[in-house]
Amino acid sequence: MKVLIVYAHMEPQSFNAALLAQARASFAARGWPVQVSDLYAMNFDPVARPGDFKSRANPDFMSYDKEQRAAWAAKSFADDIAAEIEKLIWCDLLILQFPLWWFSVPAILKGWIDRVFALDFAYGGGRWYDKGGLAGRRAMLSTTMAAFPQMMAPDGINGDTDVNLWPLQNGVLAFCGFDVLNPFVANAVTYVDDGARKDMLEAYGRRLAAIDAETPRQFHRRDEFDRQWRLKGVVPARSATSSPARRPRCWPV
Amino acid sequence: MKVLIVYAHMEPQSFNAALLAQARASFAARGWPVQVSDLYAMNFDPVARPGDFKSRANPDFMSYDKEQRAAWAAKSFADDIAAEIEKLIWCDLLILQFPLWWFSVPAILKGWIDRVFALDFAYGGGRWYDKGGLAGRRAMLSTTMAAFPQMMAPDGINGDTDVNLWPLQNGVLAFCGFDVLNPFVANAVTYVDDGARKDMLEAYGRRLAAIDAETPRQFHRRDEFDRQWRLKGVVPARSATSSPARRPRCWPV
Repeated sequence: MKVLIVYAHMEPQSFNAALLAQARASFAARGWPVQVSDLYAMNFDPVARPGDFKSRANPDFMSYDKEQRAAWAAKSFADDIAAEIEKLIWCDLLILQFPLWWFSVPAILKGWIDRVFALDFAYGGGRWYDKGGLAGRRAMLSTTMAAFPQMMAPDGINGDTDVNLWPLQNGVLAFCGFDVLNPFVANAVTYVDDGARKDMLEAYGRRLAAIDAETPRQFHRRDEFDRQWRLKGVVPARSATSSPARRPRCWPV
Repeated sequence: MKVLIVYAHMEPQSFNAALLAQARASFAARGWPVQVSDLYAMNFDPVARPGDFKSRANPDFMSYDKEQRAAWAAKSFADDIAAEIEKLIWCDLLILQFPLWWFSVPAILKGWIDRVFALDFAYGGGRWYDKGGLAGRRAMLSTTMAAFPQMMAPDGINGDTDVNLWPLQNGVLAFCGFDVLNPFVANAVTYVDDGARKDMLEAYGRRLAAIDAETPRQFHRRDEFDRQWRLKGVVPARSATSSPARRPRCWPV
């Protein structure tokens, strides 16, 4: 598998950096090629701007997604966007490595998504979810957080991890066609001791060593929704051995 | 009420700009003072960086939230952050006005949150949720989206709006102590006609005219959780007239 890791941390001694190093080592052991987009090192600009397009479809009104559509057709993205698009096309597995800030990705990584997951490239024209533009690839969130696991439960003070990650896992990754693997979550990294952190790194390494054999989380296929984009009345039961997390627990079925 | 609107759109002719203008007019009619942080016009930098602090608590290891804690104590934030903190302290009502990108805020607004909602100012040391650093203030998301309402339902293809907005409404706003009002959502703005858009602007104006009388959404108080930060067994029933959306529908009770 060809692996793209998008990495969003500014401190080389951080636990995120250690997780990145673990991933590099694990994939090297498999002989898999790895590219890393180190957003801080690249000084990546996360702000969607008119300058993201070498020419403008409509110079009088800035509609960002319509300009993306035109730029995809004309291959006229700014160079930094074009380079990231090439990496996404190349990869079989995308890993987003980041500290959870405000129950989401840091701004530098949000802007990587805003600018790179362009209309007509990553989605669009009915190419959503399993029909998305990046279908055939796997993706995983690998994140650190200050919260302890019991705080990220349905009855925990912050709510369930699945709910908190729903906009990223469903709304970004599944939306664009990725097969979404379970997230790797390193809890309470600022509170636990070095031994616990070492255990988390080893657990991550074990997981990555067999990641090509993992069963992705299940999301509904586009054809399970009707013409109003609502779930059809009869949805086939899923295998009991597959991930139960088809939707967060809010799902009514 | 003193109103702070944080606005994240680059096109002055956009519907987001029209909603901002509507808010200015509505609040002017009430005689309420308004400040606007127009992030694109300010060329706001959303990337959390070492330069966000005029001095460093630990120059050898960049822990962003620990530096925020030190900067709050020493009043040593970079000038752009300090200015936004002053606006937040000043306001009684915060409105975030943005297009929903990837089921969240655009990167320029995510970074405003990352950099400005600093540890020990906005939260920290057990000051979470109703005890948060910004308690006593109201906040509301005002967002546009391409999706139609039926796509943003529990059985809709993108999942429920409440679930998609949970990280922002619970994890950012309620977390820091704001009383969170129902969001104002303008659906399918790129697909509907001018008459429908005009109706949405008028509905927004009517809402803002009485926003001080609105009952906020209900979130659990910090003291409803036990020492493990899990919901205590017996939680008192809420008034039937208050918002039922205490949690997204994933909530087990």
